[in-house]
Amino acid sequence: MTERYAFIVSDRTGITAETMGHMLLSQFPHLQFKTVPLPFVDTDDKAEDAVRRINMTAAAGGPPLIFATLVDDKIRETISRSNGVFFDLFNQFLGPLERALGSESSHTVGRSHGVVDPLKYTSRIAAVNFSLRTDDGVHVADYGQASLIIVGVSRTGKTPTCLYLALHFGTFAANYPLTVKDLDAGHLPRHIGNYRHKVYGLTIEPERLMQIRQERFAKGSYAQLNQCRYEVAQAEALFRRDKIPHLNTTSKSVEEIATTILYRAKLKRDLL
Amino acid sequence: MTERYAFIVSDRTGITAETMGHMLLSQFPHLQFKTVPLPFVDTDDKAEDAVRRINMTAAAGGPPLIFATLVDDKIRETISRSNGVFFDLFNQFLGPLERALGSESSHTVGRSHGVVDPLKYTSRIAAVNFSLRTDDGVHVADYGQASLIIVGVSRTGKTPTCLYLALHFGTFAANYPLTVKDLDAGHLPRHIGNYRHKVYGLTIEPERLMQIRQERFAKGSYAQLNQCRYEVAQAEALFRRDKIPHLNTTSKSVEEIATTILYRAKLKRDLL
Repeated sequence: MTERYAFIVSDRTGITAETMGHMLLSQFPHLQFKTVPLPFVDTDDKAEDAVRRINMTAAAGGPPLIFATLVDDKIRETISRSNGVFFDLFNQFLGPLERALGSESSHTVGRSHGVVDPLKYTSRIAAVNFSLRTDDGVHVADYGQASLIIVGVSRTGKTPTCLYLALHFGTFAANYPLTVKDLDAGHLPRHIGNYRHKVYGLTIEPERLMQIRQERFAKGSYAQLNQCRYEVAQAEALFRRDKIPHLNTTSKSVEEIATTILYRAKLKRDLL
Repeated sequence: MTERYAFIVSDRTGITAETMGHMLLSQFPHLQFKTVPLPFVDTDDKAEDAVRRINMTAAAGGPPLIFATLVDDKIRETISRSNGVFFDLFNQFLGPLERALGSESSHTVGRSHGVVDPLKYTSRIAAVNFSLRTDDGVHVADYGQASLIIVGVSRTGKTPTCLYLALHFGTFAANYPLTVKDLDAGHLPRHIGNYRHKVYGLTIEPERLMQIRQERFAKGSYAQLNQCRYEVAQAEALFRRDKIPHLNTTSKSVEEIATTILYRAKLKRDLL
């Protein structure tokens, strides 16, 4: 199948355009796309360069797509004159938004990811440090500060979920891996049980768990299906017995696990 | 100043709508917004609930704004009939995109963040594990596997940058904090010098560094301006002498540091 080119053109990091382009293209799972990020297109020369790169690909598989968040009118116009199909993510909404708000926009480059709000920076860094400090069941004495304690057997996605929550929402999320001792006992260890109201469980299909574990450790019973089945069954029984809300992560991305927990646990969600 | 309500309505995680809404609202820095995420609006009942919540706020400071990524036609229509100003992030572009591609979209909920590609999951987790394993100058024996080694004095943003790169782009990024011994010596330690082609330096204004350090450690010389000035000056001299490309992080967000390094170091950038 021929790949269609999709350019992500932005005057800054391109994160917004990339996320939006990704969402739109994912609605065409039967097509193949080659995504080319062109961030920091913030001068006329760079805009002309971008146009040359876009036009060079125009032959392959039809005109390239362009997902753009460009604030500067002149740069936007330059890019729109390329041979690509131009999706103007910025302007398409900014005009109507100005009218709705009865206010002019600042048309300032890099407002969303570029300008640092020191308070937000601090809460993000504090949350990342908290996640790292309390990762993998250590420093349980700090659980008082946690908004969330994620528990589950090894390799259910606890660590990336905590880090994602910290980086994006400044959530203080600790994580505790259920040990064989905990699973045999059938209940949470006492020092976590005291914080039961902020505990959230992760579970997973044993077959998928085995696959994930085998990718890292080939040896021992750890990655064997029997062991995975035992651990998952015991963990789920523990969640039910201790009335711990829990989520099956088998077919979920880290973003989805993170936002689902925030939603279900009714926790604050403010994008940093 | 009256806050204007901005609802982020999505049938799934709402990450795309949130990022896009955030970018658009950041163009009105003189206005105050109260952002309310309404993720997982995937049934008619939840759509009706969302409309009630939106309409309840309609009195405060003018009609609320709605940034929506809703795939289902009926749910989208329900939300659009609320008293808010509806920004249809999905449909506004999907029609033109279908025409450009000559292909129908799947109109499937949760394609972008929800369905897990096991290969992508694996590379993301492997990258997060690599970042954690090589954080703060440990496991330097693994530097051969790194795509990037971020160096800088303590508290310049190395760790969150590495974690962001791992989570979003699957980049294997290690980080090494320049010690006073390294700074006095005026060059990178030998075990890093061997990988000089993948080293990227972070620097920062000494005043901002002092502020960040004081937020965590009030005591000792560590957070004193003299010390911060000395460390930053020595680190910058080292970068110049060893011809290490470097970036000043003072007014940059973690996203911006991460994507700027990928861009300047010409590293692969594929959103996971």
